[in-house]
Amino acid sequence: MKFNTRYTEYNNYKKDLEDRAFCGYDTSFGRMISSGICGTDEHVLKGELVVNYPLIPGHEGAGIVESVGDGVCAVKPENGQCDACLYPKGNFCDKQDVLPCSGLMLDGTSRFSCRGRTIYHSFRTSTFTEYTVVPEIAVVKIDDAAPMDKVCLISCGVPTGYGAAVNSAKNSYLVTPGSTCVVFGLGGVGSAIVMGCKASGASRIIGVDINEEKFPRAKALGVTDCLNPNKLQKPVHEVVKEMTGVGVHFAFEAIGRVDTMDAAWNSCNDSYGVCLIVGLAPSDAQLCLEAAKIVSGKTLKGVCLGDYKTRDCIPQIVTDYLQNKINIDPLVTHQLPFNKLDEALELYHSGKVIRCVLLF
Amino acid sequence: MKFNTRYTEYNNYKKDLEDRAFCGYDTSFGRMISSGICGTDEHVLKGELVVNYPLIPGHEGAGIVESVGDGVCAVKPENGQCDACLYPKGNFCDKQDVLPCSGLMLDGTSRFSCRGRTIYHSFRTSTFTEYTVVPEIAVVKIDDAAPMDKVCLISCGVPTGYGAAVNSAKNSYLVTPGSTCVVFGLGGVGSAIVMGCKASGASRIIGVDINEEKFPRAKALGVTDCLNPNKLQKPVHEVVKEMTGVGVHFAFEAIGRVDTMDAAWNSCNDSYGVCLIVGLAPSDAQLCLEAAKIVSGKTLKGVCLGDYKTRDCIPQIVTDYLQNKINIDPLVTHQLPFNKLDEALELYHSGKVIRCVLLF
Repeated sequence: MKFNTRYTEYNNYKKDLEDRAFCGYDTSFGRMISSGICGTDEHVLKGELVVNYPLIPGHEGAGIVESVGDGVCAVKPENGQCDACLYPKGNFCDKQDVLPCSGLMLDGTSRFSCRGRTIYHSFRTSTFTEYTVVPEIAVVKIDDAAPMDKVCLISCGVPTGYGAAVNSAKNSYLVTPGSTCVVFGLGGVGSAIVMGCKASGASRIIGVDINEEKFPRAKALGVTDCLNPNKLQKPVHEVVKEMTGVGVHFAFEAIGRVDTMDAAWNSCNDSYGVCLIVGLAPSDAQLCLEAAKIVSGKTLKGVCLGDYKTRDCIPQIVTDYLQNKINIDPLVTHQLPFNKLDEALELYHSGKVIRCVLLF
Repeated sequence: MKFNTRYTEYNNYKKDLEDRAFCGYDTSFGRMISSGICGTDEHVLKGELVVNYPLIPGHEGAGIVESVGDGVCAVKPENGQCDACLYPKGNFCDKQDVLPCSGLMLDGTSRFSCRGRTIYHSFRTSTFTEYTVVPEIAVVKIDDAAPMDKVCLISCGVPTGYGAAVNSAKNSYLVTPGSTCVVFGLGGVGSAIVMGCKASGASRIIGVDINEEKFPRAKALGVTDCLNPNKLQKPVHEVVKEMTGVGVHFAFEAIGRVDTMDAAWNSCNDSYGVCLIVGLAPSDAQLCLEAAKIVSGKTLKGVCLGDYKTRDCIPQIVTDYLQNKINIDPLVTHQLPFNKLDEALELYHSGKVIRCVLLF
């Protein structure tokens, strides 16, 4: 069975790990095939989030389930237990271990160790590892025909970005034809947002990044105007307001920094602008808004994984990709073997990639 | 023609004022019949907003147009000029002079004076005055049968509060049957919110205020639980989360304070909660949110005048009231002659009134 992780560790000792993978709990033991590197992994590596170290990063993976614990059912919708999974709107499952990240499985234990020392999981999906153990809720079965060297992106970047633009219809945050958009951060998630804005018929998509290496690829995906805040004479939100006259309909923040969240918020039209926060900010950061200006009508909304109920929707996105309804190929600009992780991280920082997929 | 003000000034010298009311501009000169006292007037009186002094407060009025300037058309939809009026969503007309309030008419002049000194308008609707001058866009024609001693509330409090709960359907912020709500501030606007939540089928409506005098009336309108933050052992948002288990679906802030905005935001469900900011905060106040927690999915939305396109919708709300589709009578708990304004303000502070209507 092929699977994509939603949230998941590193151990070279497959047999030892597999022995400890199950203890009567609903866990899956799997072999990783591919993993992307996401900005949130970078936040983890920089120490900006509340996590336990040492841990195995990576949460955007695809692999093969090799064995499962008692009670694991191959295809099961959302966990069906927590309030966010049961409620029609929202998708922030309380079992995903993000805010804060304990690094432990649902039974409060870690399944990774190195020379007798505990290694922690990250977001219940550690994927920078040949073999991993994840809770059942962190796995979805996907189409057997899926190209495993690419669909790892559908574990995070694609739904997070594309979904933020196209999937919020049920909540009416959908980007509408003719609307104006600004996207802060033109990495993997930001690029997926651009694709979603373009697919939705946006008339103008302004891309913002301090790394101009990203501009050519962003323009190829649909960005109409590129801005480098470090080269502007005034704050970027003022430039966006001037360019659009009244501020944008939709502003997306895909980095996870409060200064860019603030710029996205201030780029929006005061009356009907919608600011979608897609990036995960550092644990201690505060986003401070001019309170009197909130009432004029604009909206600030967090979007986790594109508001998708992921266990239902990720397999569908994979199928949509196989049926050419969505094309994620332009997002996979590089591929490297897993033992070149350091080189992949350098590429990530260079801005010369959208996503470099690690292959195991 | 009867009218309700949206945003509008004081001068006892009717003839002098009328002489200066028009200068070829689209202005209306009118006689006030009634005016409510709203929390935003209180902010103005306390010096918390950017306005010019001395001014004539009051913006929730009903009256009779006595004469109009050249170019005034009795019934005209939204101003049809600014972007917010033209766009289907949003209603924060850029001619309403709120953030900041210049206190001047559209031509940059004031029409009020006292002993040779300029008196400023407030929000282009000053209503604490026997006679006023407003721009055409600040007036809507209402049903001739409307009881003028009550419908002044439909200029602000009713659409602002009731609309925040029931009118956001187009933006999907509509309170849904069975949902849980918390309302911070149980004055006129908060009470109208409670009515809207009840009309929408909310299963639980938690009312929060530090003045317990307001609790009996709030319960009569639909509040199921009353909380006085000053008498709790822990922060009010923690109590609301405990009461609901997972946080509320909808939180409303109807005071205009950042501490209550923060409490409303933190009372919401992390995944799908919607926090609606209805109160106008002091000009220099900052609302600071824990940035990492935004991405889990919840929404912060400002709501000005219930998101209604007011020139279209206020006459309709008056008609709905006349047809018993909405009952605003419980909101008008007191009425006093205009010369007892000080007494009306005392009543406002006491919490013993929902709205005390001033009668001219």
